[in-house]
Amino acid sequence: MSTLPTSRPSTPFAVVDRDRLQANIDRVARLAADRGQALRPHAKTHKCPQIAALQLEAGASGLTVATLGEAEVFADAGCTDLLIAYPVWWDADRAGRVAQLAARVRLAVGVDSVEAVQHLASLLGTAPGRPLAAPISPPTLPELVVEVDCGHHRSGCAPQDAGAVARAGVEAGFVVRGVFAFPGHSYTPTGREEVAEQEARDLAVAADSLRGAGILEPWVSGGSTPTVEHEGHGFDEVRPGVYVMGDAQQWELGTCSPADIALTVHATVVSHAGGRLVLDAGSKALGADRAGWATGFGRLLDHPEARIELLSEHHAVAVMSEGTELPPLGTEVRVVPNHACNAVNLTDELWVEVDGRLVESWPVAARGLNA
Amino acid sequence: MSTLPTSRPSTPFAVVDRDRLQANIDRVARLAADRGQALRPHAKTHKCPQIAALQLEAGASGLTVATLGEAEVFADAGCTDLLIAYPVWWDADRAGRVAQLAARVRLAVGVDSVEAVQHLASLLGTAPGRPLAAPISPPTLPELVVEVDCGHHRSGCAPQDAGAVARAGVEAGFVVRGVFAFPGHSYTPTGREEVAEQEARDLAVAADSLRGAGILEPWVSGGSTPTVEHEGHGFDEVRPGVYVMGDAQQWELGTCSPADIALTVHATVVSHAGGRLVLDAGSKALGADRAGWATGFGRLLDHPEARIELLSEHHAVAVMSEGTELPPLGTEVRVVPNHACNAVNLTDELWVEVDGRLVESWPVAARGLNA
Repeated sequence: MSTLPTSRPSTPFAVVDRDRLQANIDRVARLAADRGQALRPHAKTHKCPQIAALQLEAGASGLTVATLGEAEVFADAGCTDLLIAYPVWWDADRAGRVAQLAARVRLAVGVDSVEAVQHLASLLGTAPGRPLAAPISPPTLPELVVEVDCGHHRSGCAPQDAGAVARAGVEAGFVVRGVFAFPGHSYTPTGREEVAEQEARDLAVAADSLRGAGILEPWVSGGSTPTVEHEGHGFDEVRPGVYVMGDAQQWELGTCSPADIALTVHATVVSHAGGRLVLDAGSKALGADRAGWATGFGRLLDHPEARIELLSEHHAVAVMSEGTELPPLGTEVRVVPNHACNAVNLTDELWVEVDGRLVESWPVAARGLNA
Repeated sequence: MSTLPTSRPSTPFAVVDRDRLQANIDRVARLAADRGQALRPHAKTHKCPQIAALQLEAGASGLTVATLGEAEVFADAGCTDLLIAYPVWWDADRAGRVAQLAARVRLAVGVDSVEAVQHLASLLGTAPGRPLAAPISPPTLPELVVEVDCGHHRSGCAPQDAGAVARAGVEAGFVVRGVFAFPGHSYTPTGREEVAEQEARDLAVAADSLRGAGILEPWVSGGSTPTVEHEGHGFDEVRPGVYVMGDAQQWELGTCSPADIALTVHATVVSHAGGRLVLDAGSKALGADRAGWATGFGRLLDHPEARIELLSEHHAVAVMSEGTELPPLGTEVRVVPNHACNAVNLTDELWVEVDGRLVESWPVAARGLNA
């Protein structure tokens, strides 16, 4: 599963600081435990069985994933409790795979419309009054969790409509576990506490709506890294992802400090053209993410004043503050990607650093599994 | 090398329209041939040996790549003439690999500083007066091509400094082929002709500077997709990349029409939340690129009025024009990524479509090879 380094890899390469990673895992595990909540970290951030194992050892109740492919990887790696927090529109192939997966782990999948529930039911042969379309043995179904839009305006039904979606699930023979939301609009410099409050209110409305549909004890799941500190009362479960790594977005949002950042992409200074620092890590190593409020395309961990002002596929051009001497050509620097989840998805392996030494590499086993 | 589809893949998946691809290849091959220029397409756009083979069959003189890893893949696939158009800062491992590669193909590498030349010379044991540091058998050297900044302000020396870099190369025992530039500032809605003119002027200054250093017939290489139409006189070689695919950036720049776009990511409508179209292709399938002038995070090939206004890792939220009926849940739609090069790097295979049917898949053999 892991590889000992024979020689230092050529740049760019992704590195995880194992002590920082563990500290991040432990901090959020304690937070959830102190509040009596389940913690179901989103594994899309790391896509890596070794990191998932550390999260589960620290008390996570299971994992969140975004795709069926990710779910299969983490089930193969030994995780027995998975939530696909995404309103997958199932096709015949994926419906067969989800049934097989539900037969071997505790599995729940997201839904946000009556049509999506009926479509899945039809593919799995559970639609009321219908014979099995494609008989599955054992005929195991995933549980359903209703996705609710709590203000991010991505997917998710309106809170008051969650009961109708749940009712369709029950009628089709599914166990409906509860409701979930993702407060993605918390990725802004201000107002995260208000976002978490709105999320809690909307999930409470949705949970009431499920009670009206006969789901007497709906499970309430929420969370994102920027809001997790504020998601106490009203949440049975939280699902942050990025906290395990940290990234330049979280640094700029103030939800982590540079000392918490566990993921960097090591790059080499290849040029001083124009008096700037040109590094050999571009959007194919870092990702091209840049939120409107971000100050650049990434940060340098050891030069907090620097900003990556130009990013192309294999170049990051960083501007240092006035008067700073540029690190010499050939210097290896640590770049903090804006968005850890997309940076990890660009590499096949994460090098693990302990006390400044690369000790092994971990495969990004779920890289690229979008379906 | 290629795979016949057994069933239609689950979304999201990347598709190349073979007829459009061939038309793009032929159009630019004719353009360069009519002008008596060599065409050296940038293979970072597709990372795919099958597409490279079509380009070479249509008359390309060789390929451009950005990394040594890409060069090795295309050499293994049979390409015998490669330019690494990047000022790599070589380490011992890569220096050994580049020497091995130079022994089996015609190979040139980019340099933009005297120090970079001397560093490579030192690693390869060619530094004047020095014994071989690590004897290489056969002692084959890549040629050097001096990178010049023609206004994009990324890497590249000033045009008038190219001769000094070339002289260092000659003194270290390298053959110096000539000069190259990348006019990346042509990626703007206006002024592409002026950018090409500036590029030609700067490359002419650089070529003169090489003549002053004793390189009597310096080879002049330029180009990008937005400028290639304007790069006639003064260029021995052009190196466009994206033209082979087309993408939403080129569509918006007006350098291709929707009917030219050969690469799409097929996605499924998973939700109508909020009255918008939510698709299961996000930044992990499309890339997160969004230039300041772009109207969204990508386009829909069959709904040119739609814009992707919100993109996360597995969601693209598209807004249709007022009054348009949303395609039903479960509809497969064709998304045009903003930047083809980054989208291709996110998938292991390209599905090939002919007359609306998927006929095979081609491996993205150089995916992820950043070093």
